[in-house]
Amino acid sequence: MTRPADLDPFVAIALEAADLAGSVIRPHFRTAVPADQKSDDSPVTIADRGAEEAMRAMLRNRCPDCGILGEEFGLERPEAPLRWVLDPIDGTRAFITGRPIFATLVALMHGDEPLIGIIDQPVTRERWVGVAGRPTTFSGPIGGSAGTRACPEIGNAELSCTSPELLKDDLPRFQALQGAVKRTTWGGDAYGYGLLALGQLDIVVERSLKVWDWAALMPVVEGAGGAMTDWQGGRLRSAGDGRVIAVGDRRLLPGVVSALG
Amino acid sequence: MTRPADLDPFVAIALEAADLAGSVIRPHFRTAVPADQKSDDSPVTIADRGAEEAMRAMLRNRCPDCGILGEEFGLERPEAPLRWVLDPIDGTRAFITGRPIFATLVALMHGDEPLIGIIDQPVTRERWVGVAGRPTTFSGPIGGSAGTRACPEIGNAELSCTSPELLKDDLPRFQALQGAVKRTTWGGDAYGYGLLALGQLDIVVERSLKVWDWAALMPVVEGAGGAMTDWQGGRLRSAGDGRVIAVGDRRLLPGVVSALG
Repeated sequence: MTRPADLDPFVAIALEAADLAGSVIRPHFRTAVPADQKSDDSPVTIADRGAEEAMRAMLRNRCPDCGILGEEFGLERPEAPLRWVLDPIDGTRAFITGRPIFATLVALMHGDEPLIGIIDQPVTRERWVGVAGRPTTFSGPIGGSAGTRACPEIGNAELSCTSPELLKDDLPRFQALQGAVKRTTWGGDAYGYGLLALGQLDIVVERSLKVWDWAALMPVVEGAGGAMTDWQGGRLRSAGDGRVIAVGDRRLLPGVVSALG
Repeated sequence: MTRPADLDPFVAIALEAADLAGSVIRPHFRTAVPADQKSDDSPVTIADRGAEEAMRAMLRNRCPDCGILGEEFGLERPEAPLRWVLDPIDGTRAFITGRPIFATLVALMHGDEPLIGIIDQPVTRERWVGVAGRPTTFSGPIGGSAGTRACPEIGNAELSCTSPELLKDDLPRFQALQGAVKRTTWGGDAYGYGLLALGQLDIVVERSLKVWDWAALMPVVEGAGGAMTDWQGGRLRSAGDGRVIAVGDRRLLPGVVSALG
């Protein structure tokens, strides 16, 4: 299948997938939901698995020609050029500690190019929708509007990252960047990229991201005026090393790449 | 003034103060609100100052015999035995980056004893109310109910702290505790103590807290079944060193104190 000329039917399906995931996740939020440890030491719950299963069942039915890749259940139809990429709960640590800053991520990729990305926060009911070549939209009852802010100087930038532990042996490189920016805040997973797309943060830098962690973020960030690259400033690829930079103002990119060494 | 026999009129005033602060803060959330750096390097905005001024004006009027201590504008009527203790925005870093996990804190203290504590999240509309000797109550539209969870074993505990940077030279002591628990998550300021009071976290450990940072938390945590102490397991005092432990299950306390060395 070539790149679809009309993405609107796929956007409608992506929104339906996010709705479905939210309806599975909400009843488990702030309950005593048990968390298992996966092989990469990250936690997973019945809410992660149930939300991904619900989305997969719907997507198989609505888009039988598309592949599906999800964090919890692997890849279906690997040969399909159009592929749904799902992370039912990005930020499972936030979810299991009751913080309303986890997110459901739904992306549609054509080969290695994300065409559509949804960041959905099911308990605050915030939703970011990014579509390649279009302005990002944001909706939700707690405030904010889509659009990154101008921040040409790295010394004025707000930097964010989910957790120092996730940086592992890249922590010294990150700390070099911390020394160049105004302030660092921690926490947020995908939600941090959403805040960058609202002009609330200027830089997010992380490592060890899988394609389901970043595919949905890219259309949201780029449609809001920002950019996402690897730590060399190059294009993100599924086969890349999982190191990700997001900037709200593209002029920050050379300084961030340089500070990370 | 001796300790009031009937706290209900003061609870009503505390709730009114939190309502007022929220009405000042909400219009500034996720706007381009400028942040100044204070002498301790923490940020402050027009929302912090405006919310504290609004609460002070109301409290002066409603409780002319009480003292008022707030983060932004110091101490009024230092001789009064009953004192309102205010932090208009605890978690200003979260506020200025658009994260809905900052909080307005309102406490009433009698000498060094917190009698009433409110943790209020003005954008998610979550509110914790603690009154000495009574069960904590929680209300809000995104889920959760008041009450800490049982966690007798430190190896099963979820630990939280706002930020590694705030631990400064106590970071190695904190890391020793991290080695003893199941998992650590970062971020949240007062909101973390609220999550502990909902049974979502087991331990919060921080340093450099001022009395306005912890006074409101104590009735909330203790009324939910937990305990708050200093790093030696002793009672928190205004003149203490600002090191704070909160546990949801009191049986965790000796192990936490021991791990912190």
